[in-house]
Amino acid sequence: MTARPKVDTKFIARLDAAAGDMENLLDRLLSAKPETGEIDRPQRLIESMRYAALGGGKRLRPFLALETAELFGVPRERALMAGAAVECVHCYSLVHDDLPAMDNDVLRRGRATVHMAFDYATAILAGDGLLTFAFDILSRTATHPDPSVRIELVSALARAAGLGGMAGGQMLDLAAEGRYADGRPLPLAEKEIDRLQSMKTGALLRFSCIAGPILAQAGTGERAALHRYGSALGQAFQIADDLLDVEGTTAALGKHAGKDVTAGKATLVAALGPDAARARLASLVSEAEDALAPFAESAAALRAAARFIAERRS
Amino acid sequence: MTARPKVDTKFIARLDAAAGDMENLLDRLLSAKPETGEIDRPQRLIESMRYAALGGGKRLRPFLALETAELFGVPRERALMAGAAVECVHCYSLVHDDLPAMDNDVLRRGRATVHMAFDYATAILAGDGLLTFAFDILSRTATHPDPSVRIELVSALARAAGLGGMAGGQMLDLAAEGRYADGRPLPLAEKEIDRLQSMKTGALLRFSCIAGPILAQAGTGERAALHRYGSALGQAFQIADDLLDVEGTTAALGKHAGKDVTAGKATLVAALGPDAARARLASLVSEAEDALAPFAESAAALRAAARFIAERRS
Repeated sequence: MTARPKVDTKFIARLDAAAGDMENLLDRLLSAKPETGEIDRPQRLIESMRYAALGGGKRLRPFLALETAELFGVPRERALMAGAAVECVHCYSLVHDDLPAMDNDVLRRGRATVHMAFDYATAILAGDGLLTFAFDILSRTATHPDPSVRIELVSALARAAGLGGMAGGQMLDLAAEGRYADGRPLPLAEKEIDRLQSMKTGALLRFSCIAGPILAQAGTGERAALHRYGSALGQAFQIADDLLDVEGTTAALGKHAGKDVTAGKATLVAALGPDAARARLASLVSEAEDALAPFAESAAALRAAARFIAERRS
Repeated sequence: MTARPKVDTKFIARLDAAAGDMENLLDRLLSAKPETGEIDRPQRLIESMRYAALGGGKRLRPFLALETAELFGVPRERALMAGAAVECVHCYSLVHDDLPAMDNDVLRRGRATVHMAFDYATAILAGDGLLTFAFDILSRTATHPDPSVRIELVSALARAAGLGGMAGGQMLDLAAEGRYADGRPLPLAEKEIDRLQSMKTGALLRFSCIAGPILAQAGTGERAALHRYGSALGQAFQIADDLLDVEGTTAALGKHAGKDVTAGKATLVAALGPDAARARLASLVSEAEDALAPFAESAAALRAAARFIAERRS
């Protein structure tokens, strides 16, 4: 075991503030009252969507949207809207991935998963509702007064979440676990694992990091830098997550530890071994930090986020 | 039985042309080749999405988008893009509604449903992928060069499809079938059935009818007229569908007839009886035709569509 890293209290305060603001905004957006153009918000559906989206998680994706927006002085309210959209997509993906037909998880963030707390049909609809709601959020003027900015966010989020991004990554993951063909796990090469993870978890993290420059209508150089940051961060996040699955405990994680190993999931930790995986993780954190060079000291919180992701214990 | 209605060949030709164009466009959009910002389109996922979206259906929603756009001289290519988006949403809803946890259907358009032809997990992902793809389509400049038009379509489609529209309607429908509480079907009053159907099937049909005026940046009067048309058409569609379920055959429908009655589904046909339902249907067709008065003869195809929906036998 490495020494417990010292806590960056300034960073933790920013992360907590973002999580608090996100909780408040999602609570407000997911109210029982229908908006213009909606007929009604059926009680069971809105309750299950709130159960899925509220009261949990580090809100890492909204945090990244907020911090990358902050680099350019984008009003916080707008970044929060973009953050709420990506968080709705993230939460929908957890609800659907937890379903019995998918990863069959009964525990998430220390609570019953949506299909256990409600039922399968409601969980499917709650996920569908959250995914759809993400695009509703992005279409609002509160996200940005300029429609060309809003539609760029819609396009980027749809590509990140869809068949060529997150949903496609989940498909590859199921295949890698041997759900199809002869039912045996597919031994993936390192490059294929990278691609799978770049789609399944990377795409949404990258989107979160370019949400800021999109909202700021920033130049291509700044976008590319934050895309590079998001890409390294996403890979680091996945390796850290896989290391946690191997080394963490169910109590600390609030979900079942050791599950990926049991499922024969294709991870870089399994492919490279824990030591080489840890070395790769360190180099990805450096890469993420390097990508932020153009922003100098104003990107301190984003640098801290990369270190935090690598060092987290739950 | 009423006499077989005479066939409006001009209308049928337009409907067929729209379906052909829609098939070609969806075939092209759902190609195996990833777009910018997509990493890859995994084979099994794109195959299941193509299976769900291609080769079937009357393409009524795209037809309505095309015809309402045609009223204003909107280029056909743009209306086809909006039509493709709403068709992706419609197809996703069929895939998810057919799942065992929902309506548990094995037959759709005379073929195995997606979860039977593939598997449950793939069906969930195919639905998620199609829903996400709808917003990708709307975000493209090919839909409209003006981003304010594209974002208005995104907003309207998200509201129509989400918790306050289609997804919410499916939730109400499951509740009405007695899936929750004490497991007994909920006897709904006529007004509640109207609301359920206005959400579950009406919202997407109304969206299709205002897609035209949105693309044309038409005035509020014209939008309101087509909204009224879409609303009456949606109600007529639902009554006709419920009458078909009672009176049709599985062979003609390509899905199981009599299923709704067995499931104790809340329909106006069950609440009013077939004769009163047929009278209501006729009055809704008149209402739909009346709403088109401002467009005079240029709306002939939309008038024919209202009659076609009421008189269809499959």
